[in-house]
Amino acid sequence: MTTTKQVPVGISARHLHLSQAHIDQLFGQGYQLTPMKDLSQPGQYAAQETVAVVGPKGSFDKVRILGPARKESQLEIAMTDTMKVGVQAPVRESGKIEGTPGIKLVGPAGEVEMDKGVIVAARHIHFHTSDAEKWGIKDQQILKVRLNGLRPLVFEDVIARVSDQFALDMHIDTDEGNAAGVRTGDMAEIIG
Amino acid sequence: MTTTKQVPVGISARHLHLSQAHIDQLFGQGYQLTPMKDLSQPGQYAAQETVAVVGPKGSFDKVRILGPARKESQLEIAMTDTMKVGVQAPVRESGKIEGTPGIKLVGPAGEVEMDKGVIVAARHIHFHTSDAEKWGIKDQQILKVRLNGLRPLVFEDVIARVSDQFALDMHIDTDEGNAAGVRTGDMAEIIG
Repeated sequence: MTTTKQVPVGISARHLHLSQAHIDQLFGQGYQLTPMKDLSQPGQYAAQETVAVVGPKGSFDKVRILGPARKESQLEIAMTDTMKVGVQAPVRESGKIEGTPGIKLVGPAGEVEMDKGVIVAARHIHFHTSDAEKWGIKDQQILKVRLNGLRPLVFEDVIARVSDQFALDMHIDTDEGNAAGVRTGDMAEIIG
Repeated sequence: MTTTKQVPVGISARHLHLSQAHIDQLFGQGYQLTPMKDLSQPGQYAAQETVAVVGPKGSFDKVRILGPARKESQLEIAMTDTMKVGVQAPVRESGKIEGTPGIKLVGPAGEVEMDKGVIVAARHIHFHTSDAEKWGIKDQQILKVRLNGLRPLVFEDVIARVSDQFALDMHIDTDEGNAAGVRTGDMAEIIG
């Protein structure tokens, strides 16, 4: 019987979470996002809608919105992207956006000047409570994880996030996925 | 006295090496590149000249040429870049370009259709022979290297390249640098 702790990898391309107030400004009052594809985390989906993200040095025309609406808007981009748009986004856990820079969003019905919320998402693993208990892993524990892809590497600072609302999945961004030469669905191994 | 094997990191942005024949086609017969900045490896320089690189899905307007001219042209891009231009470049050691895809280059005096030479450079460390002897490292040895940056990680497949023409330097691409949260000049540690 194997005892390795294998976790599927999900590579997050740049994406946007929006508050309902910002959805209203960008798409029109009371607008509802249209789910296009379910994500690995229960209840989360990629929406059909995209918006333009416009920074001081460059822009991305079509950034995917993930639903449902959240309490606060948050743009998650790779560090490579931060250089293109010219915004010095810090590495943060999702939701921890105090003191982060903002950026301009342009939708079909209007524009939003986010005053904060641009982050490079800190790599993390979502554990369902049952997975975490089985492996003796606690919420917020820092894990060491090997990605044995085309370009093997070990991430030493992976944050465990445990909830009975989560499904087992390791989230990294496109820079990290490309540095490892892995694709969504490849397996990572927790080694410490 | 510390015995750690510390190596400075150099992050390579996308760049181009050109044969003299291709320099002639792009800039005019007998054209000589203009050195702008010395690189860490002796005799190598960033040229003032840039060209456009045009792939089936996208392009980069100004890709820096590194001199001097080489026997064969070679475009080194990050994996993130391969997706933008739409070329499936493999991870290769510099100079090992058999069977790799080509791409179109556009210069002020003409165009070149490279028939091969687009690669994602395999991460590697240049050692002067004296560094390698001191640390007991052999040419082509595979090393494990920790980058203790903003986002610590361990590269497990770093190729040693040893020559009395080399200066000590670890070369990684922008995806790898961004995944680690390091900048050129930061130090890496060989740990195995």
